[in-house]
Parts: sequence; structure tokens; C-alpha cells
Amino acid sequence: MAASTEEVISNKQVLLKDYVTGFPKESDMQLTAATTKLKLPEGSKGVLVKNLYLSCDPYIRNRMTKREPGASFMDSFKPGSPIVGYGVAKVLESGDPKFKQGDFIWGITGWEEYSVITATESLFKIQHTDVPLSYYTGILGMPGMTAYAGFYEVCNPKKGETVFVSAASGAVGQLVGQFAKSLGCYVVGSAGSKEKVDLLKNKFGFDKAFNYKEEPDLDAALKRYFPEGIDIYFENVGGKMLDAVLQNMRLHGRIAVCGMVSQYNLDQAEGCHNLMYLIIKQIRMQGFGVSSYYHLYGKFLEMVLPAIKEGKITYVEDVVEGLESAPAALIGLFAGRNVGKQVVVVSRE
Amino acid sequence: MAASTEEVISNKQVLLKDYVTGFPKESDMQLTAATTKLKLPEGSKGVLVKNLYLSCDPYIRNRMTKREPGASFMDSFKPGSPIVGYGVAKVLESGDPKFKQGDFIWGITGWEEYSVITATESLFKIQHTDVPLSYYTGILGMPGMTAYAGFYEVCNPKKGETVFVSAASGAVGQLVGQFAKSLGCYVVGSAGSKEKVDLLKNKFGFDKAFNYKEEPDLDAALKRYFPEGIDIYFENVGGKMLDAVLQNMRLHGRIAVCGMVSQYNLDQAEGCHNLMYLIIKQIRMQGFGVSSYYHLYGKFLEMVLPAIKEGKITYVEDVVEGLESAPAALIGLFAGRNVGKQVVVVSRE
Repeated sequence: MAASTEEVISNKQVLLKDYVTGFPKESDMQLTAATTKLKLPEGSKGVLVKNLYLSCDPYIRNRMTKREPGASFMDSFKPGSPIVGYGVAKVLESGDPKFKQGDFIWGITGWEEYSVITATESLFKIQHTDVPLSYYTGILGMPGMTAYAGFYEVCNPKKGETVFVSAASGAVGQLVGQFAKSLGCYVVGSAGSKEKVDLLKNKFGFDKAFNYKEEPDLDAALKRYFPEGIDIYFENVGGKMLDAVLQNMRLHGRIAVCGMVSQYNLDQAEGCHNLMYLIIKQIRMQGFGVSSYYHLYGKFLEMVLPAIKEGKITYVEDVVEGLESAPAALIGLFAGRNVGKQVVVVSRE
Repeated sequence: MAASTEEVISNKQVLLKDYVTGFPKESDMQLTAATTKLKLPEGSKGVLVKNLYLSCDPYIRNRMTKREPGASFMDSFKPGSPIVGYGVAKVLESGDPKFKQGDFIWGITGWEEYSVITATESLFKIQHTDVPLSYYTGILGMPGMTAYAGFYEVCNPKKGETVFVSAASGAVGQLVGQFAKSLGCYVVGSAGSKEKVDLLKNKFGFDKAFNYKEEPDLDAALKRYFPEGIDIYFENVGGKMLDAVLQNMRLHGRIAVCGMVSQYNLDQAEGCHNLMYLIIKQIRMQGFGVSSYYHLYGKFLEMVLPAIKEGKITYVEDVVEGLESAPAALIGLFAGRNVGKQVVVVSRE
């Protein structure tokens, strides 16, 4: 460590200026030049960390909305405070016996250079550092676990079933597609650009992929790719896509509702008109939160670490440098600018 | 039997005139004075039955809509043919060794005085005749099994949970409420008239009940009855009620989607705007079809028959006399005219 514990050093932060309505803008956030002492408060049971990689995830937008406490399992952010999200960090000082100086961790941290994390129960110690550390914001972190829990636990998939993934080139979608392929499913993904569609087909091994922006009739597109219907839909976008999918589900189909990124910025969500198909096709539609499945993290790593090392799973990141790039990177999620998992590098150690 | 097998006798029928759009009208159906011989066709493996009680169920409306074959697990009716639905009947002649002359059965039959039923795999032989035979159109038949499977199997209920039932005085709702009470749940029902609300509170033992037509703000009404939120919603109506319920579900809530009677007659269903709560509250929403649960029928009877005989379960029927009353009785479901299970008496043997 370069700085002594008494020294006051720079601690840039990205603050939420105020609650957001509609599409978030870069100007809803503010980069500030705060300072900090590299020291845990006396008696703290938390950890002081240096943040290395921060994760831009669509759900962050939800926490920018003003909600009553308890209205969601994720409380709203506090205006004037740093954005909170998943990240990878290095422990500088620990008041929690589970962590020690020099450990790498992943979990909920702040959008700033240094953070004091008191909710250490949400942190995972990184045991395997022979893969890129940034992967713990994605394939080996929350999005990876989301794909794993959502696909294997929520969807109850069987070999040979047909699987549709929306926002399929994103951090979660790209993995769901690969998990489904490895199980012997027929997998189709949708994304919002030719580049992403090419990725799905050529890099992630989806059977088929299409650009939803080029489909005037989503129902017709799905009928083309799924003439026999869809067994499993991994839902990341909501809105018109969900309505079209509902029309094309098979009997006893399952929909894992992971996200609805098309709806996060609307004052009122689009209406879904095809819920009758839940009855007609006896469909199960289930929202889930990854935090209910973290007890499976060890089992997940056992599957995914060897697959990464053997090249059986491919993972694409979209990396931007510097905390000052974080607001634009987050906003870019909602414009579909990222290709693959959006990561912000705060420091490479 | 009064008639000989060679004799041609009257066989009144209720035909569907043509596919229906919008609200069904009595004039969409037609009473005809057909005739029949009381004889199974040579070599038939079916049964010839005399229909006693017919069941008016909201789902029948769905089968009046023109749909492509396979678009639903229930095919559309054929215009010019009798309405098809659940009923209780007496076997006059049997080509199926599972049934013999004089047996009472319940299952899918036709809206007519006499039917030849070839799909005998859908028929249940009535083993217990010390309860009203008409109950096999309701509490002891499809609606009873629907309530049982939907509540116990789909909702996974636990003692002390909060349960909301819409269309709660109907054939299914009245039973769900009583099952939930017997499990030690807090149960609130909604219905469309003071008379029905009184039934819910005074006869079926719901903790609370309200007339949804008198609530200008369904969200506020639900917050009043469920200040801590809803664990289980037994969905019979859809539309605005579903949107309001979604806002008031608790974490890990479950919604059994049994029916959406408010939507059956609309050209396009109302939009549901609150599906985001599936994620925020990690809700499971599941459409189900009773036919997937008929293997539990024996277990169900073991529970419900003694409860009926001991007066622990109350059951209310709305009985009309004569096949000619059937079209009006069916239409009445969608105007909320029936109080309790709507039954049509074709003959009392």
C-alpha cells in the first residue's frame, strides 16, 4: 500500500443526484472528488476495500426510483450517496474475521475508489484467481449465478426442449444460452444489433438468433424460429416481446422472469395482453432474485470454472476504463450500447 | 327405462350456432328438438347416457372462440353441434367394461338429453351416491378438483398465510376459501354483489369480503384488507384486479391462475401493467389445468366427502330447471347473475 493509514487520499465517487424518472441520463449522476482516510472506523466489523471492477447491471435503474421502504426487496438508493452495486475489490483492512488484508472479494460495494462495506454477509471471498478478476462481476458473480439459478432452478429444463432468451448477448443471456446448449436444448436468442446477433450465433453457439429491431411482427418471428413453440423463455426484456412469447409458448412452458429492461424507464409499464395463455397453456411464470440462490454458489463454481478453463464456455465483456466512465456505461445499457457484460475498471490493483 | 331401444325418442339439444366474439348471448345458442334411438352404435366402445345435471362453467366461453387446432389444450366447439361440458349422467348402455347400465358417471358430456360419449377415459364412475348427485358437477367434480389442485398443489400454502380469492362465491372460489380457512390462513374474498359478500362472510367463513364494484380503488381496498400484503392469490377474474393484486403481493407470493372471467369476452384483453412485481417480489404465477391433477381425485374425495357429511364444508348451488334454461344460465355467469355454482337440471333421473 502506498498510502499510510493516516494520510488523507483522493476517493472519487459517483453519486446519484436525485431519484430518477424515465430514462436515466448521465447527468442524474455526478462524479465528485471526495477524500478518505485509509482506515476502518474504530471497532468496525466491516471491511475497507479498494474497488477494482464495478458492474453495470440493468437492475440498478430500479434502485434509482423512489419507492417506499419495503416496496421492493431492494431499497431505493439515497440521493447524494454513491451508487451501490456489485464489484470486485481488494481488502485493505478487515474487522471481520472471515476476511483479511490482501483478500479479493466480490459483492455489493460502492461506486467509488475506496469503500467501507459493513454488510459483509453479502461478500464472497474470491478463492480462484487464475481467471480474470473482472469475471467476478459477471460470469463468476451475480450475473453468472442469476443465469445458473434462473435456468437450472427456475426453468427446470430438460434435454431437447426449446429455449428462447431475450437480451441474449448480455451478461446473463449469453450464459443461459450456453447452459441450454450444453444440456442439449434448441436455443434461439434475440438482441438489438447485427453485431450482437453475430456474437450469439458465432461465438456463443446459439442455434439461431435475430435482431428484434428488424422484426415488424415479433409473433411471426417467433413462429418462424419455433414452429413447435417455446418450452422455456428466459425473460430479460418484458413489454412487446413478452406478449409475443406468451402466444408461442407450449403446454407446460416455463418463463423465468429475470428482468424487464424495456420497462424500467417507463412511467407506466406497457400492458401485457396475453396473460390468458398462462391458463390456456398451463404456463408457470416466475420472478426470481439471485440472492435466494447463493447457497448454490459452490456447486455453480464447480461447474463453470472448469468449463471456462477448458474453453467450453465463452464470455464476452465490454470493458470501460475509469470510474469517470461509469455513468455513461450504465446509461449505455438502456440504449443497448454494450456488447457483452458491461464492466468498469476502477483500478487494476 | 321407459323407451325401447328401437324407439325413436326426443333428444333436445343446445347447439352452438356459430363462433362467438365478445359477450356471448343466448341467441348464440339454439335449442333444437332432435331425436335419437336409445342404442349405442354397433361395436361402440363408448357409453350411451341420460344426462341429469349439466355444469355452467366460465371456461366454456373459451371454447366458443374460433382458434386454430392445438392453440389451446381445449379445442374450439364445432358450430352446429351441441355445447360440450361437464355433467352428471346415468349409463343406459355401455361398450366400455369400466361402466355398466345403471351406473352414475360424471365427466365431459353434451348439452342434450341423451349423449353417446366415446371419450370414456374422461369419465369418472360415481362411487358415493349418499350426497346430492348434482354435487358431481361442482364440489365433487371438476370445480372441486380445480379448487383442491389449485390451492394445495399450485399455491403451496402454509398455515397463517394471507389468501385472497376473487370471484370468491363461485363454484371454485367458495371452496378455495374454505380450504384456506381449514388450513389456518387469513382469507379475504371479492365478489360482485352484497348478497355474495354476505355469503362469503356468513356462510363460507371468509375472514373478510368486499364487493369489488363498490371499490373505486382496488389497490386501496387490498391495502385495507391486507396491510401486510398477500401471500397467495387465487385468480379467477384477471384484468384490473390482477394489476391491483400484483402491487400488494408479498415476497415469494404465489398466484394460481385458474381463470380470468373478466377477460373472456373482450376482443383484446386489458393490459396488465404491474408484471414488474413478479421480479420485485419474486412471485410465482402459474396457470394450471385441472386435468393434470385428476390422479389426485381419490385423495381429494377422502378429504372432502367426510367434510361435506359433517357439515364442515358448505356448498351453495344455483340450480335452474330444464335444458331450455341452460343458455340463459351460461350467459348469466358473465353478468354475475348466479349465486354459487350454476347447475342445470336436465332430469332428476
